[in-house]
Amino acid sequence: MNINHQPKRGFSKKEYELRVSRAQKIMYQNKLDGIFVTNKPNFHYFSGFDSQFWESPTRPWFLVIPGEGEPVAVIPEIGVSGITNTWISDVNTWSAPNPKDDGISLLGGIIKKLGNRFGRVGAELGREMSLRMPVIDFMKLKHNLDSEIVDASPAIWKMRMIKTEGEIQRIKYICSIVSEAYEEIPNKISIGDSERDAARKLKKEIYERGADTIPFLPAISGKDGVSQIVCGPSDRILNNGDILFFDTGSTYDGYFCDFDRNFGIGTVSDEVRGVHDTLWRATEAGIAAAVPGAKTDDIWSSMNKIIEESGTVGNSVGRLGHGVGLQLTEPPSHCQGDNTIISENMVLTIEPGIEYKKGKMIVHEENIVVTRDEPSLLTKRTPREMPIIR
Amino acid sequence: MNINHQPKRGFSKKEYELRVSRAQKIMYQNKLDGIFVTNKPNFHYFSGFDSQFWESPTRPWFLVIPGEGEPVAVIPEIGVSGITNTWISDVNTWSAPNPKDDGISLLGGIIKKLGNRFGRVGAELGREMSLRMPVIDFMKLKHNLDSEIVDASPAIWKMRMIKTEGEIQRIKYICSIVSEAYEEIPNKISIGDSERDAARKLKKEIYERGADTIPFLPAISGKDGVSQIVCGPSDRILNNGDILFFDTGSTYDGYFCDFDRNFGIGTVSDEVRGVHDTLWRATEAGIAAAVPGAKTDDIWSSMNKIIEESGTVGNSVGRLGHGVGLQLTEPPSHCQGDNTIISENMVLTIEPGIEYKKGKMIVHEENIVVTRDEPSLLTKRTPREMPIIR
Repeated sequence: MNINHQPKRGFSKKEYELRVSRAQKIMYQNKLDGIFVTNKPNFHYFSGFDSQFWESPTRPWFLVIPGEGEPVAVIPEIGVSGITNTWISDVNTWSAPNPKDDGISLLGGIIKKLGNRFGRVGAELGREMSLRMPVIDFMKLKHNLDSEIVDASPAIWKMRMIKTEGEIQRIKYICSIVSEAYEEIPNKISIGDSERDAARKLKKEIYERGADTIPFLPAISGKDGVSQIVCGPSDRILNNGDILFFDTGSTYDGYFCDFDRNFGIGTVSDEVRGVHDTLWRATEAGIAAAVPGAKTDDIWSSMNKIIEESGTVGNSVGRLGHGVGLQLTEPPSHCQGDNTIISENMVLTIEPGIEYKKGKMIVHEENIVVTRDEPSLLTKRTPREMPIIR
Repeated sequence: MNINHQPKRGFSKKEYELRVSRAQKIMYQNKLDGIFVTNKPNFHYFSGFDSQFWESPTRPWFLVIPGEGEPVAVIPEIGVSGITNTWISDVNTWSAPNPKDDGISLLGGIIKKLGNRFGRVGAELGREMSLRMPVIDFMKLKHNLDSEIVDASPAIWKMRMIKTEGEIQRIKYICSIVSEAYEEIPNKISIGDSERDAARKLKKEIYERGADTIPFLPAISGKDGVSQIVCGPSDRILNNGDILFFDTGSTYDGYFCDFDRNFGIGTVSDEVRGVHDTLWRATEAGIAAAVPGAKTDDIWSSMNKIIEESGTVGNSVGRLGHGVGLQLTEPPSHCQGDNTIISENMVLTIEPGIEYKKGKMIVHEENIVVTRDEPSLLTKRTPREMPIIR
């Protein structure tokens, strides 16, 4: 696979204007005079401001998206020079940290200017979101406003679930980098390496190909499968008969891929081969089901049917895939009974998994974009036969 | 500098028992029947559970620390196998994501069992914390409890600000790794490299020496100083007369260092030399002031005095250093007027900065541990003369 053409970092002002204009339509439908956001991906989505400084939880940052007009930043002084490189021109600031008033009265003043056509302002109060500010400050803000603060998460997810062409290009690019890095693994890792060695080697391959950051890269191994997919790497040594499971959320220009790969160490049992093949076929079915108008439950069912037909059962992950973009995981979720409608330009993971024996789990994952025609793979499809490390 | 002896990863059960027992004393003083935590560093601090899976915001995780007895985990099913490697034995679980009830009734039941000696349960509601769960779920939880949910952040910071010997060893170890990597920089970076090249090369040096993760590594350059310290690296090319500013929060076994370094590119002006020397002396003063019984304001004043004597002014950072540990930045803050008492075994950054002309900033930073005797450096002190990259 050749790595795709590298998209230029950063988006045009026009892209942000389109995002805000679409957001304002959705806000109007949701009867919101505006929204304010506090988290890195939402702040990034509307402003283009990208910074590693979010790693420091000391100071809150706010971006207000009014029902009409351009976004307004309310940020600590330390951030002012950094934000001048974005399209945001209305920047309000205070000297932070200030335990007595960390931007709250300033933010309150800006929100009051939104007017009260609906008397409702949206915030990150709901599903798959949290508020990146002290709850006691949120309560003070709420108390000082005439408008009601309501949950904007359904509206925000409606905005962000559908990706623009530029967003899709970036996810495709990081998927191609990681696909190529995964393919190089059998040449770089050997029996006798530890999980930690394996993770370090994969990181090196991904960075060398041009990824910006690697916030998520578990490397987990186990005889005939793994017992869990959230902790690791450890110092465990790779032995004959093991499965080595990699997963990674690597980023380019702020956008994540999220897909995994499994490698057999030395020899792979027939049982594992069978499970791998079932998951490969389940993934095919999941991809095929991701068409506009389908429901997330349809994607789930198409995969679950093949898993059940194989005589095995599911796993403890709670879903068989999800959205991906400025976050490693985003709505929707492919769950039983979830009725979110699949739409063009959603970027999704297709992620079937089987725990075929207690403590023996295998999980597959690919990334796709939903199109008017066939769903389009962003990752290079994992081979139907599990690749072997010797 | 030789890299310090590598501490074994993970802590003994005894260490966690001591942390919880100390926490319980502080909870009693704060009239709390228990606390519950939702964020990675607090969950890690009491349970030892370390995972990159926190990168996914989809599912909430809860750990309840009762006023008496051992912590109780309330976590999504996907996390159960992972947590069995910790000392936590009371694990309660639900199939997540579940938009109808994502652990809230389960958590409520566990909290009710805490009893109501004080009728107060603490949560991460205050300073330098945020609640990693949807606010609307928090409101439901609050509504269903007889006990009041109050801000536990002062109590939690009291627990975490004083480090154990094992915590200090880990911070010292990552400081020594990064100190050595910084020293190697003039041999690896040249005029003509971009900021992005520089960041990639420093990351490589840090990983090769054994760091686990590098969540924070800005590389920022500018003629005679930098205009900001939160955004970057960019594709800007290093030119003669520039200053290259690096900062990094790298981790070992979950613990952060946080310190920066400045490199002159080719030639350095006399003015920059002067500012560098002022900051070097301010750092000496800040370190010397960090003794038990002093206040954060004393540390701030000792540095600010030297900055003012030099005829320059401060910067927009808002403070001259802070705590570091399981987070890149933690309380306390060395601010004017802040009266937090410095105590033995606090780990602190000493971080004076000067914006000596508009858009020309230089910032120094070292990490220390407060001891009964002299403050002890964890980083290798930056040279008094700025190192040069040619």
